[in-house]
Amino acid sequence: MYADRILREELISRIMTSEEAAQLFKDKMVVASSGFTKAGDSKAVLAALAERAKTEPLKITLMTGASLGHGTDGALAEADALSLRLPFQVDPILRKAINKGEVLFIDQHLGETVTLLKSNHFPKINIAVLEASRIEADGSIIPTTSVGNSASFAALADQVIIELNLAVPLSVCGIHDIFSAGEYPNRCEIPIVSVDDRVGRNSIYINPKKIVGVVITNKTDSPAEIAAPDASTSAIARHLVRFFSAEVEQGNLTKSLLPLQAGIGKVANAVLHGFMDGDFENLIMYSEVLQDSTFDLLDSGKMTFASGSSITVSEEYYLKIFHDFEKYKDKIVLRPQEISNAGEVIRRLGIIAINTALECDIYGNVNSTHVAGTNMMNGIGGSGDFARNAYLSVFVTQSSAKGDAISRIVPMVSHVDHTEHDVDVIVTEQGLADLRGLAPRQRAKVIIENCAHPDYKAELLDYYERACVRGGQTPHLLEEAFSWYGRLRENGTMKKFAD
Amino acid sequence: MYADRILREELISRIMTSEEAAQLFKDKMVVASSGFTKAGDSKAVLAALAERAKTEPLKITLMTGASLGHGTDGALAEADALSLRLPFQVDPILRKAINKGEVLFIDQHLGETVTLLKSNHFPKINIAVLEASRIEADGSIIPTTSVGNSASFAALADQVIIELNLAVPLSVCGIHDIFSAGEYPNRCEIPIVSVDDRVGRNSIYINPKKIVGVVITNKTDSPAEIAAPDASTSAIARHLVRFFSAEVEQGNLTKSLLPLQAGIGKVANAVLHGFMDGDFENLIMYSEVLQDSTFDLLDSGKMTFASGSSITVSEEYYLKIFHDFEKYKDKIVLRPQEISNAGEVIRRLGIIAINTALECDIYGNVNSTHVAGTNMMNGIGGSGDFARNAYLSVFVTQSSAKGDAISRIVPMVSHVDHTEHDVDVIVTEQGLADLRGLAPRQRAKVIIENCAHPDYKAELLDYYERACVRGGQTPHLLEEAFSWYGRLRENGTMKKFAD
Ligand SMILES: CC(C)(COP(=O)(O)OP(=O)(O)OC[C@H]1O[C@@H](n2cnc3c(N)ncnc32)[C@H](O)[C@@H]1OP(=O)(O)O)[C@@H](O)C(=O)NCCC(=O)NCCS
Ligand SMILES: CC(C)(COP(=O)(O)OP(=O)(O)OC[C@H]1O[C@@H](n2cnc3c(N)ncnc32)[C@H](O)[C@@H]1OP(=O)(O)O)[C@@H](O)C(=O)NCCC(=O)NCCS
Repeated sequence: MYADRILREELISRIMTSEEAAQLFKDKMVVASSGFTKAGDSKAVLAALAERAKTEPLKITLMTGASLGHGTDGALAEADALSLRLPFQVDPILRKAINKGEVLFIDQHLGETVTLLKSNHFPKINIAVLEASRIEADGSIIPTTSVGNSASFAALADQVIIELNLAVPLSVCGIHDIFSAGEYPNRCEIPIVSVDDRVGRNSIYINPKKIVGVVITNKTDSPAEIAAPDASTSAIARHLVRFFSAEVEQGNLTKSLLPLQAGIGKVANAVLHGFMDGDFENLIMYSEVLQDSTFDLLDSGKMTFASGSSITVSEEYYLKIFHDFEKYKDKIVLRPQEISNAGEVIRRLGIIAINTALECDIYGNVNSTHVAGTNMMNGIGGSGDFARNAYLSVFVTQSSAKGDAISRIVPMVSHVDHTEHDVDVIVTEQGLADLRGLAPRQRAKVIIENCAHPDYKAELLDYYERACVRGGQTPHLLEEAFSWYGRLRENGTMKKFAD
Repeated sequence: MYADRILREELISRIMTSEEAAQLFKDKMVVASSGFTKAGDSKAVLAALAERAKTEPLKITLMTGASLGHGTDGALAEADALSLRLPFQVDPILRKAINKGEVLFIDQHLGETVTLLKSNHFPKINIAVLEASRIEADGSIIPTTSVGNSASFAALADQVIIELNLAVPLSVCGIHDIFSAGEYPNRCEIPIVSVDDRVGRNSIYINPKKIVGVVITNKTDSPAEIAAPDASTSAIARHLVRFFSAEVEQGNLTKSLLPLQAGIGKVANAVLHGFMDGDFENLIMYSEVLQDSTFDLLDSGKMTFASGSSITVSEEYYLKIFHDFEKYKDKIVLRPQEISNAGEVIRRLGIIAINTALECDIYGNVNSTHVAGTNMMNGIGGSGDFARNAYLSVFVTQSSAKGDAISRIVPMVSHVDHTEHDVDVIVTEQGLADLRGLAPRQRAKVIIENCAHPDYKAELLDYYERACVRGGQTPHLLEEAFSWYGRLRENGTMKKFAD
């Protein structure tokens, strides 16, 4: 039984049910789990743990690669099983608990978690739960649809529980590239100089003595929710394609551009689709998440290679891709997230980074995480890793939200995730602001003119001009900078004269 | 004449006065100059240019490594000769002009300027003015007390003017290590794995055809203004030394710690001096600026090697160091600032970064640049390069300014240079907040308790508690967050009840 999935025989005796595995946890433990953008997450053990926590007091610290699927985060939050969660999440129930202060949340650059762990800036991991497609003879595991932080969790945890997922085809073997730059003071270079460089091994080594349980599962990843492109996201894509076409014409870039990264969110996916239309060729990708659009670009021949840390696609694409996965195997690689998101590699390769903003201000500072400066949406994710080190850092957003009650271009962002230094281009459906080489006062004019929603343009300009009277490198009227949020709270709209 | 300083004879014929050199510039030109933290700057040509601009309309874009000395920035600003300045400055006259909006200023991560230039995100450089201690037979130059961006300026500029400074002893030859990682899409690794690795050549290559003038100077750098440690900076140093001693005791660090970086400002220098007192050994430095304290540490034997991009010391230390420079030559290296400040190397080596904040907020966001959110002080400098990629990112600041009229711990910083993700430890004379592994709500309590000035503690706590009632990952009362600056403007103090 499982002869093709468990090549180290002694581990067959450690097969257990998820309920049995859940008994291995104790209150206050630090738990790590595989899972990156809903791909390759724990599908059984954490769910069983949530069940158990319904009836017993049991609160853990939970760290992952990035978000989990299957409502696991919500189930854990609902069972009051989480004291601290990091570094990212997208679950509506957990989000609510975080914003109430019931669950503490550390929002973290996704490329940094492993470095922080290895530096002892965090407590030791007691148990890691890692999804695998196969256990090798040496006890190492072949991951599934993501790598995330799993390799380092395996190395750092006291104990490991493997979720062996039979639903993942064995054809994934070979797409993972597990590399570590080591530990201080002896870290080495990450020797990637081309997106398709393979620099590590294809499995994650685990000391077999640490493997305390193997749980068999048979469940696919939660599908990505892909919103169909609409007028507004298509307009954003069009502006961007026009921008890159002009860069090619001016000789700043070739038709292959430079390696692309695209963040999560409906706009990012639409934008990537936009590259199908332009006059581009031999595109390559060095990103975190490989989405539907990545596979469309690969299928069309427009893209030749994509490197990421996870494959997160819709149900339709999941079936299509894994039905004939061999054809992608020389075109994709999945890496640990401290490699996919390494500033070192991002700067070296010269990434074109495209991420989504909740709101931008007139000087080009970006808020990606905090609604009205306080309430966590998802987390900064990898956007900071890419925006800081990119060849070109693009932020896309619609110019307004909630009908037009909220302007996503504001006088001053209510929370800063990305400073103006890390933002080169802002695009809304209204237009594109090319901020390269501009000082803050110049940035303000271009952002207001090109990106703001018409309903808010005049007031933004008025704010900027009155602020200039007071002076400064970055003119502001601090007593007024956040007044738009007050109006929103009181009148339900940021507009000055609610109709 | 100059036989030991100009080894390429043809260039002797291009010797000219600074006034003649100043005639080579045209209105609207993009000019680059050597100079990093007042070291190795242009001492004659830019000054002559300022003179010329007094009587003719002449406005240039000026980019440097970092700050210039000798009041050059002020003279240029006063002559109305600057339209755009980047990436850093410290001059009071220029600062005023920037904040009035008379001179545009691009505040930039010091490690990024070269990448942005090579990516064509900025206009082409017409003329570069570079200080040198010697011109080699192939036309390359040995820099003086800084490297800064000079190597890339030499490569990218259409024309180069060399300021050959006879005041700099030829014994500096050999301390520079000029390396470039190349250009997109063919950038390579920066092969530094130890602070004392030498990876490049010891001179800056310049195509001799581009050298349009050689100006002879004989003037030392502007001395660093080093404030003597006082009760408050000494307390900060004491807290930090105690923290690192505890880290050594707990086995997180050895007595050699990890490579140190220290920013500019009086606190940073005092803190470095503090390491003289602790039980440390074989310290090493990977920083931007080598200051008086660096040489004290080297002299005492506590430090074995220091890598930087400039030597910026007081007058007394300048005389002492260059009187017997041979003894430091195997202990220091000066690198281009895109190498000294490379995120790649900083992350790899695991730097302990110590920078100064103008103000911090209760969640650990840091403002290093903008007084009351609007007026530029100096610029972000290299603080972001280091804080983002460090093993440990420390920010030091006194808890108050201007008597105690200003609290440097505020509810929300009026400008964000460093987000909470990039801030691990905050230290004031009141105490130290170790923020590692803490979520925002936990960070707030520790920062208020350990770092705030007693006069502001109660109100900070009151703000935090009332904000928590409203909820959120990062609780805030947006309508009140900046009220402290309003009080300051109106009453001259941030205190609620001015006495
Ligand atoms: C910023 C981010 C939330 C945008 O995602 P998206 O799917 O494009 O977002 P939308 O524009 O659909 O907005 C999401 C919701 O927030 C609301 N919203 C958007 N901007 C808002 C604002 N400024 N204020 C209040 N609410 C806002 C929208 O109305 C929408 O709510 P609804 O669904 O109830 O209408 C998402 O990209 C993200 O989490 N980014 C950070 C992480 C990251 O960038 N990772 C990149 C690599 S993984
Ligand atoms: C932040 C920085 C200005 C602090 O420098 P410093 O010499 O320690 O600063 P001080 O505490 O002496 O403050 C400088 C002045 O600003 C004033 N000041 C300080 N904090 C203030 C605040 N929050 N609001 C208003 N004014 C403030 C001080 O009162 C002082 O003015 P004064 O001389 O008229 O009294 C300086 O470190 C810097 O420019 N940092 C950014 C660049 C950087 O970090 N580079 C690192 C690598 S190069």
